[in-house]
Amino acid sequence: MAKEVRVIEIHENVFAANDMTANLIREKLTAQGTLFINVMSSPGSGKTTLLTALINRMKDKVRIAEMDVDIESSVDAQRVADATGVRCIQIHNGGLCHIDADMTSRALIEFGADDLDLLILENIGNLVCPAEFDTGAHKNMMLLSVPEGDDKPLKYPLMFSVCDIVLITKIDTAGFFNFDFDKAKERILKLNPNAVIIPVSAKTGEGLEEVEQILLQEIASLK
Amino acid sequence: MAKEVRVIEIHENVFAANDMTANLIREKLTAQGTLFINVMSSPGSGKTTLLTALINRMKDKVRIAEMDVDIESSVDAQRVADATGVRCIQIHNGGLCHIDADMTSRALIEFGADDLDLLILENIGNLVCPAEFDTGAHKNMMLLSVPEGDDKPLKYPLMFSVCDIVLITKIDTAGFFNFDFDKAKERILKLNPNAVIIPVSAKTGEGLEEVEQILLQEIASLK
Repeated sequence: MAKEVRVIEIHENVFAANDMTANLIREKLTAQGTLFINVMSSPGSGKTTLLTALINRMKDKVRIAEMDVDIESSVDAQRVADATGVRCIQIHNGGLCHIDADMTSRALIEFGADDLDLLILENIGNLVCPAEFDTGAHKNMMLLSVPEGDDKPLKYPLMFSVCDIVLITKIDTAGFFNFDFDKAKERILKLNPNAVIIPVSAKTGEGLEEVEQILLQEIASLK
Repeated sequence: MAKEVRVIEIHENVFAANDMTANLIREKLTAQGTLFINVMSSPGSGKTTLLTALINRMKDKVRIAEMDVDIESSVDAQRVADATGVRCIQIHNGGLCHIDADMTSRALIEFGADDLDLLILENIGNLVCPAEFDTGAHKNMMLLSVPEGDDKPLKYPLMFSVCDIVLITKIDTAGFFNFDFDKAKERILKLNPNAVIIPVSAKTGEGLEEVEQILLQEIASLK
């Protein structure tokens, strides 16, 4: 039992230090008018594809860059860079299951964000650990894909609780899977009554206009 | 930087203690002829549905039970219990992102596995952390669902490296998604040349006979 208590104490220390760094990042980015969005989801929910479509819609209106986190490989950053032409970097987080404010801070120093209106962090695919760490983002956005099922809010409640915007992705496949949108919405709102929930499809473009408008409003509010 | 080193040291201690407990679990279950399978995947890849179908095929031939791990809710254990009638328990792991040998050991004491030929652990949906912890299982089996995409081995290499059996699930949706089975197979085998890779569908039944035969052979090898 002693082992467990020790782990919890360490967690608490890590979280307190992390929150301090996250607040510093947020203050700096607010002061310079850069909106910072942390995008989280399960592996394979369509983060890269959706963000590519979104960046392509928005890149002529605002100055955007993306930071991609993965354990290994640079496929995501490369895909976004190739498809959008905006500045992208790939962060390898050394096998960890999340990204914290310290990692974000170091990435920001190397990356440079002074010239940006919108900085997007594509977090590692994981519904558990990334939800525990404040990255310094102004808003958390998560993707729940239709093939994953409408029961996910019951099983990963913290993730749904910490996200301001929940995109139900691959909505074009709803006819193929047994996904009850109303049930998913009800479960998310029970955890997080202020969540904005939008069904989207990178394939058909459904919902992207609404997501774009929300982000543009948030950017405008920092200026 | 000091913080990082400290975290890694703790990890090493945890892993060493974990491996010792895992080996004890494995030895005990081997001695009593119970095959123990640890099933891992992303959230929503279809673990519960597939295991339900598999248990229903096998339950009249061998004595089976299932342990389900989630942060909250008991929907998975309840679904399997309702659909198969076999003994199931739900383990709530206190918000952690994985299950380790210590948790398995405590669950086994409460659950009792002396009368079983096959014990299935449905791990928490996560492609990162569960791969790091030996649960004491004889075999690791993972599911990669078609909607998640064929690039997952590039991004979550440890998970694919530690699994003996990789099931490509929801194979019936292959026509709907841009999933290249040969590419996925090549990427998995590069990480893990001994992996047994089987395309399956709980909906159509494809591949289930092959999975059943592998498990029956493994059970027979313990007797």
